[in-house]
Amino acid sequence: MDISKILDKVLLAPKSAIPLYMQIATILTENINNGTLPAGSKLPPERELAALLGVSRTTAINAYRRLEEQGLVSTRVGSGTYVAELTPPVQSVPAVPWSQLFTPTPNTQLSSILREIIASVSVTDSIPLAAGMPDPALYPVNDFNRLFSLQSAHTGGCDLGHIPTEGYLPLRHALAARLTTKGYGTTPENTMIVSGSQQGLYLITKVFLEPGDYVIVESPTYLGAIQVFSTANARLLSLPSSGRLPLDLLEDYLIRYRPKLFYIMPTFQNPNGRVMPLEERRRLLQLAAKHRLIIVEDDPYGELYYGEQPPLSLKALDPYGGVIALGTFSKMLFPGLRTGWVVAPETVINRFALEKQYIDLHSSNLSQRLLYDYLTADLLDDHLAFVRTEYKKRRDFVASALRRYCSPYLTFTLPAGGFYFWCTLSHGIFTRQLLHEAAKTGVSFVPGEAFYADAAGSQELRICFVTYPEDQLLEGIKRLGKALHTVANSTNTGIRAHPGVTPII
Amino acid sequence: MDISKILDKVLLAPKSAIPLYMQIATILTENINNGTLPAGSKLPPERELAALLGVSRTTAINAYRRLEEQGLVSTRVGSGTYVAELTPPVQSVPAVPWSQLFTPTPNTQLSSILREIIASVSVTDSIPLAAGMPDPALYPVNDFNRLFSLQSAHTGGCDLGHIPTEGYLPLRHALAARLTTKGYGTTPENTMIVSGSQQGLYLITKVFLEPGDYVIVESPTYLGAIQVFSTANARLLSLPSSGRLPLDLLEDYLIRYRPKLFYIMPTFQNPNGRVMPLEERRRLLQLAAKHRLIIVEDDPYGELYYGEQPPLSLKALDPYGGVIALGTFSKMLFPGLRTGWVVAPETVINRFALEKQYIDLHSSNLSQRLLYDYLTADLLDDHLAFVRTEYKKRRDFVASALRRYCSPYLTFTLPAGGFYFWCTLSHGIFTRQLLHEAAKTGVSFVPGEAFYADAAGSQELRICFVTYPEDQLLEGIKRLGKALHTVANSTNTGIRAHPGVTPII
Repeated sequence: MDISKILDKVLLAPKSAIPLYMQIATILTENINNGTLPAGSKLPPERELAALLGVSRTTAINAYRRLEEQGLVSTRVGSGTYVAELTPPVQSVPAVPWSQLFTPTPNTQLSSILREIIASVSVTDSIPLAAGMPDPALYPVNDFNRLFSLQSAHTGGCDLGHIPTEGYLPLRHALAARLTTKGYGTTPENTMIVSGSQQGLYLITKVFLEPGDYVIVESPTYLGAIQVFSTANARLLSLPSSGRLPLDLLEDYLIRYRPKLFYIMPTFQNPNGRVMPLEERRRLLQLAAKHRLIIVEDDPYGELYYGEQPPLSLKALDPYGGVIALGTFSKMLFPGLRTGWVVAPETVINRFALEKQYIDLHSSNLSQRLLYDYLTADLLDDHLAFVRTEYKKRRDFVASALRRYCSPYLTFTLPAGGFYFWCTLSHGIFTRQLLHEAAKTGVSFVPGEAFYADAAGSQELRICFVTYPEDQLLEGIKRLGKALHTVANSTNTGIRAHPGVTPII
Repeated sequence: MDISKILDKVLLAPKSAIPLYMQIATILTENINNGTLPAGSKLPPERELAALLGVSRTTAINAYRRLEEQGLVSTRVGSGTYVAELTPPVQSVPAVPWSQLFTPTPNTQLSSILREIIASVSVTDSIPLAAGMPDPALYPVNDFNRLFSLQSAHTGGCDLGHIPTEGYLPLRHALAARLTTKGYGTTPENTMIVSGSQQGLYLITKVFLEPGDYVIVESPTYLGAIQVFSTANARLLSLPSSGRLPLDLLEDYLIRYRPKLFYIMPTFQNPNGRVMPLEERRRLLQLAAKHRLIIVEDDPYGELYYGEQPPLSLKALDPYGGVIALGTFSKMLFPGLRTGWVVAPETVINRFALEKQYIDLHSSNLSQRLLYDYLTADLLDDHLAFVRTEYKKRRDFVASALRRYCSPYLTFTLPAGGFYFWCTLSHGIFTRQLLHEAAKTGVSFVPGEAFYADAAGSQELRICFVTYPEDQLLEGIKRLGKALHTVANSTNTGIRAHPGVTPII
């Protein structure tokens, strides 16, 4: 590469705060680093460089000196300046066998499903009904744009430095006040901000679970919870959650295994949409008190109801103080905020903060500042009223589309809130077959197996009904229906058992 | 509480998207939950409620029905509506002994120092020279305010939903391009966004370290690194880092212990400000290649130089591919972004992403979007040139203040970059004594012990010189000097050994 060609294109900024010699050194460094000027290239003499760029000779000398100090060029007396050999050859070493150096991989067969679902959101030629995301078109971006100002009078730049691990204090106050109106009776000290409720789950795992500990989960339950408990090497006890909660079986587990935690989503359960009735909540709490059970209550969807408001949360009803509550703004507003919360006794919050500081010091101030402004501007309730109306329409629309295009192979119960239809396949169709066929027609969903800690769910699937406007939802359901009919016709033996485990010999 | 007093103050919003009956139910719910309307309170008959609020009787009936469904009120036939007993008494249960339920506390004596330092930043009547934070007055908030728009043409609302765990792809592209000009030769696939470089360290720990594994750290080194390695139950090998890096001792460690990692900050080391010369970097890398050592290079301060640009990073010079590089925007811009990065082979990035999804799914989109806009608007280099000039002035100012007010008890070497003076006490003064005296005079710093994995540093301390304007820095150093003189006079026996360990009998 002819050096003068590079220098011809150079535009120096004499008025910049960066001295000219540094600007020149930076340009040459970039060209050396990206290989345009390979090792051994001869650079023009200082006088010539100065002339080419219209700078003083001192500037040219300083630029070369800087490069020399960095080891990027070397000067041979009487010969000139040359680009240096950056990495002197070492004795030949094989490539690092990275994966051999890793700790054992978390042993869950579902390890990457969640990530794949998230990644698939960016696939544009398909209609992914898998991810549990609000519709981007409904995000209150105008409100956030209006609120955003890092120099706002009440806070100033200080709030963009380090803040306490437990969260931005004004947000903790505003959130605790809001939760108190929901019956939580919490204080800022009992309310900690986390990077999405996923991080709350992670902290709970770190603080309460040792390998071999038992954890009760609903069956089906949230995929991310199964994963995080599994990677902590906890043993999962599945409690069927489709109909009435089997309190007798729960008590059996409590006596038999002394589990550390019960992870439950009592309101608009993910995936099955179930709402636990008030009386059942009370009986669960009495049982928990009797057996000293710690309950982790996850409630991302409680305010997204499409009919009657659901009963009070377990945390609000808790008579003995054994409930840790998780919440998030991801479903009410948008996931990119990465802001959730944990409500727990102060002792627990203190220990969570100790763990969280190792993980990320604290969560993003930008999100916390914006949420504080949003809450104090009293915008959330109107937004919730708006999305409830819209999502209710979509739920009813998808229900009728499913009946029209997916019968008789798929059945479901109408969810009273949340984001999902939990569907059951019949006629000997299995979800995995359908998943592949659906991918071909350009639609996706989450296979039921993802929501079970044991090997169940092979004829179930979850569809999210909120992420798209009606025309796209319709197209998605039509494609699903097409895939269903194709699979049904290819497996019309009527009886087709689960494929089973094939021994590898 | 007279219910009519509450209702008198009620302002209903007939034009709101929230139906009137729901507004009424919400107000009553809040008053029940916050205790204004205790259990047993009688509510006015529906007709009376309707009259009081100027709504239809149907609206009043619907409001009560909603409360009843939530279990907040109960209707006694022929008597009226009463606030219900929320939490029926359970058989008396002692308070949950939370701390007994926790996993063992991470066993580092320094566990909470980092958090205390961060929390102390909000103490306004003191001058904390402890935290390593840029000056909030220099944050480029105007640029960020100008850039912020969630509806920007090139992205739209979609980027506020879930994004891949590895980071916002446009930012990974922009960052990889920037790092390439610094000699890293990285690609977006090799560049992962994390919630501050602290999270990079945490991921490295999760993926590489099992209990009992050896990790080499410089001595002194970054407090947060000592903590995160310690909580993973790694064994730390301390390598003196004040003068020339002792490569012979390093090789001894490599042969003797086969350590998993060497964590090193070769440029403007925290706390001691040392810059490893180019030739030493090359020899370290050759030794690493020979013994197959994995190096974790942390470089938060590399672009904050106040004289000559430092040598190329280890990652840029690495001839065998065994370096994992960490970086962050916290020191260059502001910590509240909580955005850092890891550069590593794709195999390693994939495994990091697997772990990170359990921790928080992905980092804040808001920060990542803003940083992408900031980088592509080409604003970072000018900002860096600006803060370099300003921080250099402050460094020189603090150096002369230290000489004036803290001699002869405190000595230091002038740092060529970064944020800190690393100071040594003499005349038999120990840092812990000074810390208490300094707290009384209203100034803080980080005691040297915090930076050692072994029990050293009892006569050293770290002072940050960038966070405040000169007048406050001056006041801080004056206070430090006053504390020093007080301590010196109270310990003027001349020889005062380390207090030693007192057996507890």
